[in-house]
Amino acid sequence: MEGDIAQLGQYIGAGIAGMGAGIAALGVGNVAGNFLAGALRNPSAAAGQTATLFIGIAFAEALGIFAFLTALLLMFAA
Amino acid sequence: MEGDIAQLGQYIGAGIAGMGAGIAALGVGNVAGNFLAGALRNPSAAAGQTATLFIGIAFAEALGIFAFLTALLLMFAA
Amino acid sequence: MEGDIAQLGQYIGAGIAGMGAGIAALGVGNVAGNFLAGALRNPSAAAGQTATLFIGIAFAEALGIFAFLTALLLMFAA
Amino acid sequence: MEGDIAQLGQYIGAGIAGMGAGIAALGVGNVAGNFLAGALRNPSAAAGQTATLFIGIAFAEALGIFAFLTALLLMFAA
Amino acid sequence: MEGDIAQLGQYIGAGIAGMGAGIAALGVGNVAGNFLAGALRNPSAAAGQTATLFIGIAFAEALGIFAFLTALLLMFAA
Repeated sequence: MEGDIAQLGQYIGAGIAGMGAGIAALGVGNVAGNFLAGALRNPSAAAGQTATLFIGIAFAEALGIFAFLTALLLMFAA
Repeated sequence: MEGDIAQLGQYIGAGIAGMGAGIAALGVGNVAGNFLAGALRNPSAAAGQTATLFIGIAFAEALGIFAFLTALLLMFAA
Repeated sequence: MEGDIAQLGQYIGAGIAGMGAGIAALGVGNVAGNFLAGALRNPSAAAGQTATLFIGIAFAEALGIFAFLTALLLMFAA
Repeated sequence: MEGDIAQLGQYIGAGIAGMGAGIAALGVGNVAGNFLAGALRNPSAAAGQTATLFIGIAFAEALGIFAFLTALLLMFAA
Repeated sequence: MEGDIAQLGQYIGAGIAGMGAGIAALGVGNVAGNFLAGALRNPSAAAGQTATLFIGIAFAEALGIFAFLTALLLMFAA
């Protein structure tokens, strides 16, 4: 058994952080899913809420990208 | 016991990140599921929301692909 | 097997904290998703609740950023 | 393999506690999301419940900050 | 590898307990969120239920504080 044991942690940690990116997709899915559910009930109002849809997706997506960034930092920078 | 212990972490981490890709499918499922629920309630409006459906799927899918990318990087690049 | 074992913990911990950032995206998604669901049911009232939308997103986002901050501190400061 | 094994635990524990901050964002999201869903159904009543909104957010946020505090204590004080 | 291995357990346990504080925020969020959802549907009845709201928040919050207390005890007293 050889190798730097700290790298063991880096790689396991990167994997866990990568899982976080996947979990964030649930949040994005909630935003887009609720938009679609509402837009199909009331299509004429959908166009006026497109900006809010992207705001909601952007904030949830940002947290998922933070998780992915943590994975990248662990693999290549830490 | 031989072999590089850092690889142990790489493979475990890749597996955890792969799980993240699966979790992201839940988010994609929320988007598509809500679209279908709405489209079947109001079929005439479904065609107008197809673009939104793909936008929502794309953002959730992207986070799942980030998780998959983390797994690939752990296996072949880190 | 070599290296500082404390770093092992730092990196695994950073990954777990990074996952927390992803989980916080679920909370953000709940806020934005409920806003969209309501705004499409009652579009005329949506403009009056935009401030509340951002308050809700901000508080949930802050906790996700705390998780990301924990990851960064573990990687680079602890 | 060198280093103090107790630090290993401190750092892994800090990461797990940091994840708790992210989970608390779900609670905050539930409060704000339900407020928005209700406020858009009955906008005239929303102003009277703003105080309750902030009370709910504050209590949930406080628990998320306790989790973040646990992470900070583990990293820098324990 | 040096140090007291029992401390390893104390610190990891404290982190897990800190996560519990975050999870309790979900319970607080459910109480406040459901109060808001109901109060906005029937505003005239909301004032009469404020006491119940605080009872519900207090009990859920207490459990989160117990989790935080567990973390503190593990770090500094156990």
